[in-house]
This record gives sequence, structure tokens and C-alpha cells, in this order.
Amino acid sequence: MRVGIYQFAPEFGDIESNLNKAEAALSQLEADLMVLPELFSTGYLFESREELKRLAEEIPGGRTTRALEAIARKKGMGIVAGMAEYDPQQDKYFNSAVVLGPSGYLGKYRKIHLFYKEKKWFAPGDLGYQVFEIKGAKVGVMICFDWFFPEAARVLALSGAQVVCQPANLVLPWCQQAMITRSLENNIICVTANRVGREVRDEEDLGFTGQSQVVDVGGVLRFRLGDQDEASAVIEVDPARAIDKSINVHNQLFNDRRPEWYQNIIKS
Amino acid sequence: MRVGIYQFAPEFGDIESNLNKAEAALSQLEADLMVLPELFSTGYLFESREELKRLAEEIPGGRTTRALEAIARKKGMGIVAGMAEYDPQQDKYFNSAVVLGPSGYLGKYRKIHLFYKEKKWFAPGDLGYQVFEIKGAKVGVMICFDWFFPEAARVLALSGAQVVCQPANLVLPWCQQAMITRSLENNIICVTANRVGREVRDEEDLGFTGQSQVVDVGGVLRFRLGDQDEASAVIEVDPARAIDKSINVHNQLFNDRRPEWYQNIIKS
Repeated sequence: MRVGIYQFAPEFGDIESNLNKAEAALSQLEADLMVLPELFSTGYLFESREELKRLAEEIPGGRTTRALEAIARKKGMGIVAGMAEYDPQQDKYFNSAVVLGPSGYLGKYRKIHLFYKEKKWFAPGDLGYQVFEIKGAKVGVMICFDWFFPEAARVLALSGAQVVCQPANLVLPWCQQAMITRSLENNIICVTANRVGREVRDEEDLGFTGQSQVVDVGGVLRFRLGDQDEASAVIEVDPARAIDKSINVHNQLFNDRRPEWYQNIIKS
Repeated sequence: MRVGIYQFAPEFGDIESNLNKAEAALSQLEADLMVLPELFSTGYLFESREELKRLAEEIPGGRTTRALEAIARKKGMGIVAGMAEYDPQQDKYFNSAVVLGPSGYLGKYRKIHLFYKEKKWFAPGDLGYQVFEIKGAKVGVMICFDWFFPEAARVLALSGAQVVCQPANLVLPWCQQAMITRSLENNIICVTANRVGREVRDEEDLGFTGQSQVVDVGGVLRFRLGDQDEASAVIEVDPARAIDKSINVHNQLFNDRRPEWYQNIIKS
């Protein structure tokens, strides 16, 4: 399976331009599963509810989902892309990722662990950690700050995820290294699509750290992009290698777990 | 609080010599909490049940506990040290760590996640992850391979541990880096006391990786020893900094957890 990422600097508020850029990048690639950054079509730093209202979209049905769906079908690829979602039923906004297969819309993930001022704009995710089937691989999704909580990748892996896609807008320096640990401890493939560039809005000045990467099973870093370049990369991985959790003849990471001693993880 | 480690190459089967070495090292140090490697008094690679029977001791009551207790009292320090335990009630052997405060014996931890051929010799830990009070700090214990399971450090931190002591006999290359993630995700101090040297026994040839280290809250590596040196190191840390789990004005690592979505972590 060829998995890849497209790392770029979205223009805040300009969905048209960001979609065009992503479409152009994806059109040139041959891949089975591509991951785009968090909030790739809108940018990150919202300044008002009105702004969010103008830029958030329904999933599916919105313009961004439709555009990505067209590429997914045309290229026969899966796509996981971060975007601002509006849910008319609940009248709520979510920091979401849309999940598409070669035949179109598969589902969405709503970010469960919100970072910093995201709490001002978005409701916490209410759909849990789900696993989607894309081209024969079990694919899980988490977004950016979810990495800080080992439970996120763990729950996905325990639910069968072989590949974890992580759209991101990282501003802290630790995630890329930590994802090597997430890969190791769960024996999964981790695909982190981070953005680059800077946003100065809402009294904040954020620099994003790029270094999008693919970590293969066993914590093997397959590539890591630069911290400022707009670039894409695709690499061949074998999701089947994430099925067997054996790390030697005596240890199998999931069978060796001792949940009877983990009880206070689910107490609030 | 001054925390430290003594990293050395135990002589297999020679409790007398290993105890003497540890005593000499600890006697020269001024510290509040010292951590010794896993199975520091016996060595690692057992070849027979008879050998284990000869070398394992009761905790407390055995020779190793008594010797460490004397040093702890004399130096007014806490000590966490890995050793082979025999439990006469259950007629079982455990890969344990004894925990001592300046006033003597406090308790023990029995390794919950056994690595490789340890499963041949030791029973899996049956005491859970406990927290001990040493000189005003809440101290948790895990042993070596426990690092691979994010649940271990998580459960300790959720139980209030500010400092996690990790006696280790590491042969894989990843733990030292992963402990930076463990520190970050739980905002705790992690003290890893690994051994150095080589053991060729029981048809195995194992090289131990040293690089004992202290990682301060926020994933800050305070020191890391060499991969072959016998050496000790002590550093001042402030366990109170591990109490508040805030990482910015909007995010508090434990309050931000969403246990309702973590349920399958405790399903077996």
C-alpha cells in the first residue's frame, strides 16, 4: 500500500485556493492513501464565530468533501483530510477529518482532544475512535493533539487499525518523535501530515513545524519532510505487518497486556 | 529532591559482590532517592529453576533487602532496586523491585509485563501499580519492559505518582527515548536505572544498553549516562512540578482525558 502526505501552508479563510493546491498536489501522485493536514481547507486560527460559520462545512455534502471525493474517485485513492465541520442537527462545530475511499465518502472523525483555543470554537468530538477499511487496510484517524494521549492510538490499534492517519497543525516540538513510540507500542503504521508556515491572528502568532512523516511498524521512520517546505511524499508500506503484534517468540504486545491492572485509566 | 541512579554490570550469581558494589556506590552519594537496575543483585539470565531458587530472596526479610535497608537508614535516602523475589506463601518467583525509605522497608513492586524468557522463570506481577511516599514525594515503580505498555506509566501517574522509578536491564534500543514520551504525556519525572555489560548464558547472548537517565517533567532529559560505563549520577528535581498537569491555560492533561472513549483499553 502506497501511503503519503501533502504538507503545505494553507491560506487562512481561502477554501478555493487551498482546495486548488491540494487538488493539484494529489492529482500528480499515485498513492492508495493520502493524508492532508488538520483544517487544511480553512487554516487554523479563527477569530470569530462568524468566521467559523462562514468557513465550516457539512460532512458529507460540503464543498470540500465533494472536491476530495472527486479526486479520490478519479485517482482511485483513499484520502484523510482535516477540515472544519458544521453539524446542523446539533448546531455545533467540530475539528474533523473526512475519510474517503476510492468509491467516495466513508465517514468522519471529530477531534476528541482539543488543543488550546480550539476549545473556544469547536465542540469536543462525539464519535469516538473508529476504523475504516481502505483498499484492504484498516485505517484509523486521530488529529494532531490526540498524540499527547496514549489512549488515542491505543484504542485505534485495539480496534484493529493497522494504519493511523494524523492530520496535524503542530506547534509543539515533540509529536514527531512521540509518534515513533506510538508506532512501537502498538505495532502500527503512523502517517502524520503536518502543515508548515505561520499564522498571525486572534492575538496569536503560531509557527507550524512541518516534518510530516511516515513511521512504519516497529517504530521505523520511513521519511520525514523538512520543517518549512511545501512538499509531498509517498512510500510503500505493508499494513499486514501490523496485524501480528508479536515482537519476539515470547512477547505479543496485545496478549501481554494486563487490563486487570489498568482499571483507573477509564475512571474519570 | 535529589534523585539518582547507579548503573553497573552485575556479576551473575554473585550477590555478595553485587551488594558490595552497590553499597560502595550508594555510600559515596548524597541523594534522597536512588534507583538501582533490575535484578541488580543476581544478574539477568537464569539457566535453571535451581539457580533461581538459590538466588531469589524474600522481600522483606532477605539479605538484599536487609543490606539496602541499612544503607537507606544510614544515608537517610530512599532506594528502589530490582531483585529476584521468592514468595514462600505462593511458592512463586517474581521479578520484583524493593522500595525503601529512610526509615526502612516500604513495599515492593512485582513486574507486571514480563519480557522474553523471564516468562520461563517468573510469575507475572500480582500487586498492581502502587505509589509510595518517599521524602514527601509520591513515587511509583515499574520495571524495564513495562515501558512498552503506555498503561503502566499512565496508571501510576493517575494514581498520583510524581516520580516513576524504572529499574531496567534493557537490551532493545528504544526505551530511553520512549521515556521522554512517558514523561511528557503524564507530566512526571522518570528515573531509569539500566545496567551495562554483557551476559552469555542459557543459550542467549545479551548486551545491555546503559544510558541510564533522568527525564524531568515536560519530557526534559536532565542527564543520560554512557552505554558502557559503570557510573552514578544524582540530580535535583522538584516533584511538586508533577502535580499540576496543565500544559497551557486551556489544556490540563488529566482533565482533558475523555475516558468515555477509552473503554476498550480495559477489555481483554
